[in-house]
Amino acid sequence: MKLDNENAFGMIGLGTMGSNLLQNIADNGYNCAGYDNSADKVDSLNNLKRDTIQGFSDLKTFAKSLKSPRIVMMLVPAGKIVDNVIEELLLVLEKGDIIIDGGNSHFTDTERRNISLKETGYHFIGMGVSGGEEGARKGPSMMPGGDKKAYEIVEPILKKIAANVNGDATVAYMGERSAGHFVKMVHNGIEYALMQLISETYEILKNGLKYSDEEIHDVFKIWNEGRLQSYLLDITRDIFAFKNEGESVALVNYISDQAKAKGTGKWTSQAAMDLNCPIPTIDISVSMRDLSHYKDLRVKASKMYPSDDNLQYDDKGKDYITALENAFYFSMVSAYAQGMHLLFKANEEFKYDLNLDLIAKIWRGGCIIRSAFLEDIFAAYQIDSKLEHLFLDDFIHNNLTKCIAGIRTIVSDAVMQGIAIPAFSASLSYFDNFRCASMPTNLIQAQRDYFGAHTYELIGKEGVFHTIWEINNKTEQSDLIS
Amino acid sequence: MKLDNENAFGMIGLGTMGSNLLQNIADNGYNCAGYDNSADKVDSLNNLKRDTIQGFSDLKTFAKSLKSPRIVMMLVPAGKIVDNVIEELLLVLEKGDIIIDGGNSHFTDTERRNISLKETGYHFIGMGVSGGEEGARKGPSMMPGGDKKAYEIVEPILKKIAANVNGDATVAYMGERSAGHFVKMVHNGIEYALMQLISETYEILKNGLKYSDEEIHDVFKIWNEGRLQSYLLDITRDIFAFKNEGESVALVNYISDQAKAKGTGKWTSQAAMDLNCPIPTIDISVSMRDLSHYKDLRVKASKMYPSDDNLQYDDKGKDYITALENAFYFSMVSAYAQGMHLLFKANEEFKYDLNLDLIAKIWRGGCIIRSAFLEDIFAAYQIDSKLEHLFLDDFIHNNLTKCIAGIRTIVSDAVMQGIAIPAFSASLSYFDNFRCASMPTNLIQAQRDYFGAHTYELIGKEGVFHTIWEINNKTEQSDLIS
Repeated sequence: MKLDNENAFGMIGLGTMGSNLLQNIADNGYNCAGYDNSADKVDSLNNLKRDTIQGFSDLKTFAKSLKSPRIVMMLVPAGKIVDNVIEELLLVLEKGDIIIDGGNSHFTDTERRNISLKETGYHFIGMGVSGGEEGARKGPSMMPGGDKKAYEIVEPILKKIAANVNGDATVAYMGERSAGHFVKMVHNGIEYALMQLISETYEILKNGLKYSDEEIHDVFKIWNEGRLQSYLLDITRDIFAFKNEGESVALVNYISDQAKAKGTGKWTSQAAMDLNCPIPTIDISVSMRDLSHYKDLRVKASKMYPSDDNLQYDDKGKDYITALENAFYFSMVSAYAQGMHLLFKANEEFKYDLNLDLIAKIWRGGCIIRSAFLEDIFAAYQIDSKLEHLFLDDFIHNNLTKCIAGIRTIVSDAVMQGIAIPAFSASLSYFDNFRCASMPTNLIQAQRDYFGAHTYELIGKEGVFHTIWEINNKTEQSDLIS
Repeated sequence: MKLDNENAFGMIGLGTMGSNLLQNIADNGYNCAGYDNSADKVDSLNNLKRDTIQGFSDLKTFAKSLKSPRIVMMLVPAGKIVDNVIEELLLVLEKGDIIIDGGNSHFTDTERRNISLKETGYHFIGMGVSGGEEGARKGPSMMPGGDKKAYEIVEPILKKIAANVNGDATVAYMGERSAGHFVKMVHNGIEYALMQLISETYEILKNGLKYSDEEIHDVFKIWNEGRLQSYLLDITRDIFAFKNEGESVALVNYISDQAKAKGTGKWTSQAAMDLNCPIPTIDISVSMRDLSHYKDLRVKASKMYPSDDNLQYDDKGKDYITALENAFYFSMVSAYAQGMHLLFKANEEFKYDLNLDLIAKIWRGGCIIRSAFLEDIFAAYQIDSKLEHLFLDDFIHNNLTKCIAGIRTIVSDAVMQGIAIPAFSASLSYFDNFRCASMPTNLIQAQRDYFGAHTYELIGKEGVFHTIWEINNKTEQSDLIS
């Protein structure tokens, strides 16, 4: 048995993520302690029989085992449980100790906890952790925010356990208060969008082009060797090659289409709406997971509205897969650009002091949305750290322009054939509106003024105006009302 | 001066809506009282010099002037102000009196107020009011919810001031607690979608087909005489005919494209996401109003990504306007269907005891989304009051089927020409997913299990499964884990 005050790091919540992260920390030469209120989980940890990892069932003993200032990270389900654990922790920790919430907490909860813990003299860090189980074990991407001084104390440990891209650890201080969890939330929103785009690509390949599992595997394999290289394509390629023993088709074909979600994508869309920042590709990806659950309705509707067999994809040659790659690249850029724009906007609104280049930098490794394209995003913000939107970067502009014909062809064909591609469509229509110097929303302003006297502005003229539209002789001047 | 206890109805908040509604009530033979903390507004009301309308600057005198049980309606800005007014009202009202919140309160606020006022012995009704200024004056559509006994006391007055469709007043008790404001919120969400669809139609006509104001006016005029007849097309037609004196083009051309919003559309999308109910046409309509505000970005992007002049709409004949009408009909149905589905889902979740047929019935007149199609919606719920989704109604199915070719052509052409039509696209892709017996979201489940061990279900097999996907020899069986 080790002495008290010997452990450099404490973990509360010994699920797979917590246990894996603790092993990762131990691998890097730190003594560490784990606590869980489930005795089984504590036993599992102790059964690893590692000299430098101790599992505790008693919170006080756990706390006592830690070096001062104590570093305690929570990996527990978001919500009320986090508050409960913090409350218990305050009874066994001392002022100056550091509490890290490494779960998927809603950023508004982190904001509140940050403020209330600061008042009590404890240090609080809200930290997003991405990379899944494997990332936790071998090197995640981490997005800490909040108490900067406390972060500096923890930084040496985090840098060692993070993933590594060209010698740089995939962890950095994100910004003030809830910045870490906000950034992680947007990461997940982008993740939803990319997963939806991949599943729509699968739909086109399978139901549009009638590709076999092997052919689908080959497409993702080849894409993943080029500019689309990414963790998500990496695993997708593997998935289409995975068959259970004795099966002739890939396991994915047997999996239910009702897709679950933990809610971080939804939070991203809801927060973006509160910030008046459009992120339609992410929104539709959230909606489609929801729609996937209405199985009975969909089965009924499929009988009432069968596909028109007269509409068939013609025989498409190899060029079509190139067009599809362009469409995917285009939509992927649109998804990342929407997410980064949301971060830009949140930074203005919440004064997080975010550095978008740093965010792109740490997302390049360890996390679920890591991809070759993140190098280009990183490069864009290195050229202009205040870049408001990725569409305006020259390199991206150049690549995107070359993909426009491809996305138009793919969306148009799918629309004609009845193949559902909502995220591809939304990525394109977002772009087509974004490049409109004049949107048709002037009509909406006129309508609002007509029915609700909500007033309108005129182009190039100061002031707010109201018109009595229903006058039939149409001679009434519109009035400047303020 | 009239005696105390003589007024049948009191209004707090004498903006245009409040004043108009009060005049409407007076027109119907009731004595009524108005209160506002702005002396100007009280003066304006008294300056109408109507025997049966009294304006008050003192809340106590205002309350004293009302018959018991007092009926007091608030038309004040949503949020904290409503709570403040209620607090003040409780000082001058008596138990058994009735407070109606007729503003656009968030349904969760109404839920809270309903519960807390019930405990104190006051009656509370949260009521959505639609119809704009003109509706308030001549007959709005009203959606009251909450205290049913109190509603029955107020009902005779509300029935008289409401709009009237075939002898039926456009007001009815919606359901428990916050039902009234929830229904009104969804009404507004549908309103956003319809307005966005109209503005995209304008975009196709103007920038795709190069139609003049007059030609656009003619299209809306003709549509409004057929199955698309609606209040919103009615005013849109007028808008394209409205020129200021001395101007050669319609006023709408001079109006800024930065479209404002009061937030009820956003609330609808956010609430739908919380209820896991997809309403993508409404979502995108909210997003596009947001995008309209990024004028500087859009102007920059318009220069970097100009329209390709090689892409032009061919000369389109009259048939094309028929296809466009079909596309509009299709998307309009999709928008209403999404909204009604959200009501269905909210009713399950919140136990409001809503009657969808009654909702359709009162939306047929007085409100902003009134339309010929609401008769068809009403008919669908009369046939099956438990209808889960409008796409499944036979009459709508029949009409929708005939429009599918049209919407595909319109969306596909716009996609190829770079005309932005996000709401048309979303309406179609929603439909194309909705009629999928199998969505490609099985892949999302596989991905989630791969990177996060989130498990998956198998088609036609009980249980929850997890696979070690990264094993290369692929001989590992997927395990039933629970």
